[in-house]
Amino acid sequence: MPEVEVKIPEVPAGGYRIHIGSGLLDSVWTRLEADCPGRKFVVSDAAVTAAGHLKRLIGAAAPATFVIDPPGEGSKHIGTVIAIVEAMEKAFLGRDTVIVALGGGTVGDIAGFAAAIFKRGVKVVQIPTTTVAQADSSVGGKTGVDSTISKNAYGAFWQPAAVYIDVETLATLDDRQYRAGLVESVKHALIADSGYFEYLEKSMPAILARETAVLEHIAVRNCRIKAAVVEEDPTETNRRRVLNFGHTVGHAVESASGFGLLHGEAVAVGIIAAELIAEKTGLGDAKRLGRIENVLSCLSVPMSIPKDLQKTELFDIIKHDKKAVNQWPRFVLLEAIGRAFCRDGQWAHEVDPQIVDEILDRLYA
Amino acid sequence: MPEVEVKIPEVPAGGYRIHIGSGLLDSVWTRLEADCPGRKFVVSDAAVTAAGHLKRLIGAAAPATFVIDPPGEGSKHIGTVIAIVEAMEKAFLGRDTVIVALGGGTVGDIAGFAAAIFKRGVKVVQIPTTTVAQADSSVGGKTGVDSTISKNAYGAFWQPAAVYIDVETLATLDDRQYRAGLVESVKHALIADSGYFEYLEKSMPAILARETAVLEHIAVRNCRIKAAVVEEDPTETNRRRVLNFGHTVGHAVESASGFGLLHGEAVAVGIIAAELIAEKTGLGDAKRLGRIENVLSCLSVPMSIPKDLQKTELFDIIKHDKKAVNQWPRFVLLEAIGRAFCRDGQWAHEVDPQIVDEILDRLYA
Repeated sequence: MPEVEVKIPEVPAGGYRIHIGSGLLDSVWTRLEADCPGRKFVVSDAAVTAAGHLKRLIGAAAPATFVIDPPGEGSKHIGTVIAIVEAMEKAFLGRDTVIVALGGGTVGDIAGFAAAIFKRGVKVVQIPTTTVAQADSSVGGKTGVDSTISKNAYGAFWQPAAVYIDVETLATLDDRQYRAGLVESVKHALIADSGYFEYLEKSMPAILARETAVLEHIAVRNCRIKAAVVEEDPTETNRRRVLNFGHTVGHAVESASGFGLLHGEAVAVGIIAAELIAEKTGLGDAKRLGRIENVLSCLSVPMSIPKDLQKTELFDIIKHDKKAVNQWPRFVLLEAIGRAFCRDGQWAHEVDPQIVDEILDRLYA
Repeated sequence: MPEVEVKIPEVPAGGYRIHIGSGLLDSVWTRLEADCPGRKFVVSDAAVTAAGHLKRLIGAAAPATFVIDPPGEGSKHIGTVIAIVEAMEKAFLGRDTVIVALGGGTVGDIAGFAAAIFKRGVKVVQIPTTTVAQADSSVGGKTGVDSTISKNAYGAFWQPAAVYIDVETLATLDDRQYRAGLVESVKHALIADSGYFEYLEKSMPAILARETAVLEHIAVRNCRIKAAVVEEDPTETNRRRVLNFGHTVGHAVESASGFGLLHGEAVAVGIIAAELIAEKTGLGDAKRLGRIENVLSCLSVPMSIPKDLQKTELFDIIKHDKKAVNQWPRFVLLEAIGRAFCRDGQWAHEVDPQIVDEILDRLYA
């Protein structure tokens, strides 16, 4: 029987820069002309626009722009992506377009996914303006939007062409969002860097006071940890899973709350769940849990499941987890502060559903 | 100002096999278990199912299946992709899923795109059942669906894990579709292989009689030409553009006809348009055009623009072409039968809109 072999050549190594500073936003537009030539299309949201960040970014320029309204997780669905693609077509944009994503994690996820699929892919530049986006979602190339059934059901790995982090944009961020987003920084410290965790413990007052120097320092440490993990495993075949620490139960709680809980708040609950699982399976201890609870309580984020969420619904969502195999996901666990647990080369672990059931019970306040 | 560099490692060279034969379909399902392990999700359409191909493929197996209905270009929109993703979620499918696309070009494009974006990407196996899909769309990794404004506005480069071509599936294909799909074979011959063009000229009676040996031979030659081009330039930065020969005007005619014309029929018109442009710009000659017209007329495909299509609308669609730069696409032209024209390393060329306007006028029957 005849066969024809199609060879796909290697894709050479690449990369991108994350620029971190305070007050960057005023000069980014000019720098983009040199760093990323091409017609620009800005995606932002109503909250970011109201905070004046869009105006600071574009100055006197008048690029085609799409403002997501209402802002937030509720807009992170395929309908918004369709509206963006149609707006780009009406602006006669082609494959040389550069999408500029200005906003929080939702804006970055939506705009990044639109870039991945518009005419088979165009460049995207991420300019994150929230604690969660600066710590996590703007780096690493995960993009996606939710279906009615699960989070990020639609998505792509699509690395940005560049990332610009201006910590000054955090000054106007709503307090609850500000604190919730810092949970991703706590997560980074827990999985990869005990020294960073100690820094977070002792710097809490300065962090909550939003001191610029501390925020820059945190941004750099977050990006270094995330870059190291992403470099090793860009498409999450194994090691990158450590970044999902706290996210398996976290995603379920977030979805079940109908996004009444912010992403970081739900991840805080998920981190406690992972630590209780660790304790139960001999990997954790009460002292470690105490230190983690202490840091999270400084951030005033929840550490228990709201009573109105049904446990059966949580279970159902967990079964739909992207990483599930035979309808049950694996869990990332710690073996110490600063060190994710790895066994036989695997970074995500099977946990008996019975144990998860028990832990969920304990997590109802 | 601090900077963090994110390095993305090289993606190693890869590839996949195209298996060609007559009567393959009965054994593919068993072979897939070994070739592509993972849970299968079949995407097909109502016409292919009615022709009995789905039953032949799966035998006694009962995989989760999505049947596109109505079949054809009218279903090639994002709504169908959303329905497929939701069906996959309801079947509790995860990242280890293998989508099996059984059908014509539309099925392959839709299913391939769904595979590219479902939970950030799963494998797809292409089993093309039409002349157009076997010659062209099942190989090379182009996937996508149309927006209300242009063709393949949503899409991704997503290479299949394997391709199985069973020429026996062509036996039941509707005559008009059968003939239209062969235009892509003519295109391959014209851009890359004058010997193949001569083979098509002399084999027309056997081709129209659907002789198995001839169909296998054509499949192999098409796949070799396409594989060679795709290998050199998988994401169409330059050389791969030759595969768009006839497609710039072709896509416009296809869209403007509201898909009253089949893809291959519209490409036939586009090939004549490209040849008239070549003649006008000193690259073509009447004798060559005569040979091409002769082959296309054996296939009984149109070579002029239907009178009810507005020229202004055609121009508008051409401006929205994916490959457009400053709202005007470049054109692939021949310098001889079997040889696309290349100048200064470029395979697509600027053509004065005035010339295109004139050629369109000539193409109205």
